[in-house]
Amino acid sequence: MTDWLAVARELATRLSSDAADRDRANQAPVKEVELLRQSGLLGVADWTTQLAVGRIIGAADANIGHLLGYHYLQIWRSGLFDKPVRTQPDWFWAGVSNPLDAALELMPTESGFVVNGRKTFATGAAVADRLVVSATRTDNGEKITFLVDGKASGLSFPGDWDNIGQRLTASGGVLFENVEVPAEAVLGVQPTGEHPRLSLAALGFQLVLAQLYVAMAEGALAEAAEYTRSKTRPWFVSGVDAAVEDPHILVSYGEMVAQVRAAGLLADQAGAELLEASEAGTALTKEKRGEVAVTISAAKVVSTKVANEVTSRIFEQVGARGTAAGYGLDRFWRNARTLTLHDPVVYKAREVGENYLTGARPACTGYS
Amino acid sequence: MTDWLAVARELATRLSSDAADRDRANQAPVKEVELLRQSGLLGVADWTTQLAVGRIIGAADANIGHLLGYHYLQIWRSGLFDKPVRTQPDWFWAGVSNPLDAALELMPTESGFVVNGRKTFATGAAVADRLVVSATRTDNGEKITFLVDGKASGLSFPGDWDNIGQRLTASGGVLFENVEVPAEAVLGVQPTGEHPRLSLAALGFQLVLAQLYVAMAEGALAEAAEYTRSKTRPWFVSGVDAAVEDPHILVSYGEMVAQVRAAGLLADQAGAELLEASEAGTALTKEKRGEVAVTISAAKVVSTKVANEVTSRIFEQVGARGTAAGYGLDRFWRNARTLTLHDPVVYKAREVGENYLTGARPACTGYS
Amino acid sequence: MTDWLAVARELATRLSSDAADRDRANQAPVKEVELLRQSGLLGVADWTTQLAVGRIIGAADANIGHLLGYHYLQIWRSGLFDKPVRTQPDWFWAGVSNPLDAALELMPTESGFVVNGRKTFATGAAVADRLVVSATRTDNGEKITFLVDGKASGLSFPGDWDNIGQRLTASGGVLFENVEVPAEAVLGVQPTGEHPRLSLAALGFQLVLAQLYVAMAEGALAEAAEYTRSKTRPWFVSGVDAAVEDPHILVSYGEMVAQVRAAGLLADQAGAELLEASEAGTALTKEKRGEVAVTISAAKVVSTKVANEVTSRIFEQVGARGTAAGYGLDRFWRNARTLTLHDPVVYKAREVGENYLTGARPACTGYS
Amino acid sequence: MTDWLAVARELATRLSSDAADRDRANQAPVKEVELLRQSGLLGVADWTTQLAVGRIIGAADANIGHLLGYHYLQIWRSGLFDKPVRTQPDWFWAGVSNPLDAALELMPTESGFVVNGRKTFATGAAVADRLVVSATRTDNGEKITFLVDGKASGLSFPGDWDNIGQRLTASGGVLFENVEVPAEAVLGVQPTGEHPRLSLAALGFQLVLAQLYVAMAEGALAEAAEYTRSKTRPWFVSGVDAAVEDPHILVSYGEMVAQVRAAGLLADQAGAELLEASEAGTALTKEKRGEVAVTISAAKVVSTKVANEVTSRIFEQVGARGTAAGYGLDRFWRNARTLTLHDPVVYKAREVGENYLTGARPACTGYS
Repeated sequence: MTDWLAVARELATRLSSDAADRDRANQAPVKEVELLRQSGLLGVADWTTQLAVGRIIGAADANIGHLLGYHYLQIWRSGLFDKPVRTQPDWFWAGVSNPLDAALELMPTESGFVVNGRKTFATGAAVADRLVVSATRTDNGEKITFLVDGKASGLSFPGDWDNIGQRLTASGGVLFENVEVPAEAVLGVQPTGEHPRLSLAALGFQLVLAQLYVAMAEGALAEAAEYTRSKTRPWFVSGVDAAVEDPHILVSYGEMVAQVRAAGLLADQAGAELLEASEAGTALTKEKRGEVAVTISAAKVVSTKVANEVTSRIFEQVGARGTAAGYGLDRFWRNARTLTLHDPVVYKAREVGENYLTGARPACTGYS
Repeated sequence: MTDWLAVARELATRLSSDAADRDRANQAPVKEVELLRQSGLLGVADWTTQLAVGRIIGAADANIGHLLGYHYLQIWRSGLFDKPVRTQPDWFWAGVSNPLDAALELMPTESGFVVNGRKTFATGAAVADRLVVSATRTDNGEKITFLVDGKASGLSFPGDWDNIGQRLTASGGVLFENVEVPAEAVLGVQPTGEHPRLSLAALGFQLVLAQLYVAMAEGALAEAAEYTRSKTRPWFVSGVDAAVEDPHILVSYGEMVAQVRAAGLLADQAGAELLEASEAGTALTKEKRGEVAVTISAAKVVSTKVANEVTSRIFEQVGARGTAAGYGLDRFWRNARTLTLHDPVVYKAREVGENYLTGARPACTGYS
Repeated sequence: MTDWLAVARELATRLSSDAADRDRANQAPVKEVELLRQSGLLGVADWTTQLAVGRIIGAADANIGHLLGYHYLQIWRSGLFDKPVRTQPDWFWAGVSNPLDAALELMPTESGFVVNGRKTFATGAAVADRLVVSATRTDNGEKITFLVDGKASGLSFPGDWDNIGQRLTASGGVLFENVEVPAEAVLGVQPTGEHPRLSLAALGFQLVLAQLYVAMAEGALAEAAEYTRSKTRPWFVSGVDAAVEDPHILVSYGEMVAQVRAAGLLADQAGAELLEASEAGTALTKEKRGEVAVTISAAKVVSTKVANEVTSRIFEQVGARGTAAGYGLDRFWRNARTLTLHDPVVYKAREVGENYLTGARPACTGYS
Repeated sequence: MTDWLAVARELATRLSSDAADRDRANQAPVKEVELLRQSGLLGVADWTTQLAVGRIIGAADANIGHLLGYHYLQIWRSGLFDKPVRTQPDWFWAGVSNPLDAALELMPTESGFVVNGRKTFATGAAVADRLVVSATRTDNGEKITFLVDGKASGLSFPGDWDNIGQRLTASGGVLFENVEVPAEAVLGVQPTGEHPRLSLAALGFQLVLAQLYVAMAEGALAEAAEYTRSKTRPWFVSGVDAAVEDPHILVSYGEMVAQVRAAGLLADQAGAELLEASEAGTALTKEKRGEVAVTISAAKVVSTKVANEVTSRIFEQVGARGTAAGYGLDRFWRNARTLTLHDPVVYKAREVGENYLTGARPACTGYS
């Protein structure tokens, strides 16, 4: 049996070796997806292994961790429609479904549908083999989820992603011009009422984000510590011979490591709860779905704080010369700062607080 | 099989109903230990159940959670000497071993020893049935750990504990005047070299503290939330009809709940690791002992921060009228502030940081 | 010319010598008001000196600083009605006007009014010579402010103040039973429209609070530092011979001192701006009034945070033995925690933020 | 009389209009220094005006604020030697004196000296008209400070500054190859003993940094607020119609604005104290010098925290789309993160704390 964590660690080493350079180059992650493909990690099917692999890759390069996490997520959420989902171990999946955009339009044809429209923030779509897409039928207003081949005719990518962080995630727009969707590519209809099982999809995104935030903090700590060990000079009035003996540096690392570990455990518990809910199938209750949503929101609150704090605070342990652009240590903060804005975390805290005070369950939306 | 968590919850309800009054009365916890005895909780033998029970009781009344946590701890650490330890389900245990005091003096006699001296900060000793005591032999300087009956002749308690928090823990001094210790009451000798197994005792104290800090935060949140739900008035410019609809109140609870949950998981992982180390028996390596120590220190760092922050921050969600002395909501902060000073947490952070940077294991001391 | 700061410092020394004991005794501040009277500080007329004296006294004993600050405030706000206000250097003033209570009822008589009703949270009223009172006319609904002799017939004080902090401020209720108010005791009518000058009164309360919060932090720091210098033991693994050499203790004090100084300067600027607005008389514009309100709110935001943080954090520099009840070091936090709930600070932050974003001026209410 | 603040504001508007583009272009600030020259701001002589101008320019573009602050500083510190310093209103000054590098070597010649060696982190030197340089005499070990023309023969600049922040400050290295220094260019000798007046130079650098940190936070807030007002969408569950009505956004701005104002006042007080010390001339005592040093360190502690926090936290009020690279909002954090590492702030906190506890004055070094 393949030791996927070892495979992930090997790929992580390779990815972190030039992560700073690739961040600066700011290209579509074609090469990186190819590395994922060759490693076999795209085909990992076990949920817990997926999360662990995601954390390892995400710590080394949050861009690639993001792509991989969403890849697993898209396959999983496709399965929530309880229709067999065909994939291959070397296919890379992505999605097109930003809930805040106007919906894509789906026009019925004899053999299925054609889809038209424009979406933004479609992470990984431009480099994907398979896309999970949501759109609205023009005839009856139903919201349909379906699969599209990444190379389908009529599909184009303006390549308009140029942000301060997560630069290699190809999170730009997608243009659909009469893209054909055969009937058999349809996964299902989003029901209008509350549907605990299908509504897990939104929670899956939130979980992957929480896991990535923890990974970002872990990656920042690891790279900063390597710098502190090998390059940081002790301050001239510190009275110590090496930076790793400076009491303030030791305490700072200790505080950060402890916080990151706690955040990681909460993200892991959120993962375990979502798995359990997912495996409950149609037996999943609203109450249980609500509990999972709260745990994931709590994980997001804690990991957001940790990711933004740690990726900035590490600089104090690294020192002035560590700000040289060549080291690219700012990419951890830029990545964290960008991805933690996916949706405003204060509204996650609000969900957790409201649930604690009144027992209210988070509403089922594209973000909760 | 008894559902000990249900038993604990029932006792917790009773303890919290008059916790504020008992805090003000500031008496030795005679009645409370009797409640523990009658509940049967003193006899719980399973480690994981002990920790869960400790959190429940500690949230309701951190004083009694402290006594109970140390009670379990003293029985467990007595067992580390690998000599049969006799107890009874209704005995209440405590210890006398503040490492910062001068040692008690142990003079050999024909049938064992007599012990003389004075110790401070002996939580629960004044109300205990059995005491685990450490002292130094006057003839050869060996440090011996032994058991003493709580009612032994020559033992007295000045009743000098009057602190701002943990007021009901009877954490005052102990006076030994020619207290007889028969040879069979000796548990063993503290070896001079590094001894991973026996050195777990110090980690046990740290773990119980970390668990209690989490319990304090949990208890503060629960009582504050009850107040917010039932008594807090919405602020007149908030535009909402009830405090539980105020967006800022919701967010604050959400942030606190999330942080407390993360801290709790780290404290639980520390508990699981210590159990595993404890069960490894003489096979326990220095490396493994070091890992456990680091996890416990990390748990202490996170839980200390959470306990002090949450027990103070809750007041903002409670409002001005919640400062009436009758509610006694300040006892959570006073308890947290007092107990989190057990030993300076900054040196725990230092251990974690040093381990992360250099791999160094925490030294084996009375506090690590 | 009397050096009032020296007088204040002398009284401060006396007040701090037994502040912990008096806090525990929890009596009406009769003796303390007598000390203020004898010192001559009640008669200080200069605004800037008043603020400086308030900080000195408030640091030594936040209760007495509170009484003194409100005393100056009541005289000043009485003057806003532009009618001569008679006082004597040895009169102690207080007010009765909690905006959240139902209004007192003012019934016209031949020679003035009689007032009936009940108010809460009337700091210092029970020990005052002169009271500034607000009530509503039963005949025409006008809100009138007037003066009442503290010993007036029909006035009584249930002595119901028993809170966790600010225990010596006599902040309990007041009962008015047919208390006579001669026409000449009326200061004026609160206009129904926006009235920049009269609305300064509410800002004055907020300013005094901000100043007191800073004083609390200053007092906590001073007493903790004295403890650290004289009693704190260096931690046994610190490698230093005295607590004042421990690097973590030094850094903590440094961070706290710096934050308190910044907060103090903002509170002082708020004081200077309010003085300027007050001296502008009827020329005071809404715009200027708005600016002052924002500065005072900003001062309140910063000083609230500093007061609550510092009064709790000092314990880490003091150590476990400093939690002995005899030292009473918790009174700083209890005082801060209580008084900073006067009105929810988050709504002050909201005012500052809204003003920054949109230019909106804080509404004129009893709290802004 | 020229209104220099108005001039500064006008230049600030121009600088902020393309600050993000210029940050990306990463060129030597030739054009920007030319703008400073043309504006007349290089010739401002009044200390208080200099500080105010520095804050305005630094908020718009921290790079140029840095260059301008150091320019004023170099002229001022040259004057500390009490020898007439010749300048012209359109000369741009910079310095070469990183205390952590090996010293430049100064060899006596008939007419003065020649200087050889290499220094790093010489902000602005590559684009300066006049350089203030420190070097060590090879014959007697004296440390000499002297002036060099920016275009002097033998002087070269490797252009090796490429860091994550403060990218336009030309803070790279300087190479001296037999650069001639005529005797009359010598400002003076650094005495070996404690010399309060000359040691003010190091404090001047610290003050300029503290002022810049505040300016960075001010600039970040201003640009973020403009974004929030004009572009941020209200979150779909917020129930408000505009981002500027979202209660959490309002509170966040309020908290940040208040903290920045407090930090600014402390930096201003530090400036006023340094001016007073500077004007005291040779009458300046060690005690007074110590007090000024403590205030400046306190200002640095507070402003460092504020700058790093605010420049990161603004993103939560801006939202996901504000991370587009075109807005360049990350430059505030990159600038703050880079410049606040000038020297480790924890040692500044230590100075403040030690002074508070023991009265010790900060040692006179290149950084205090």
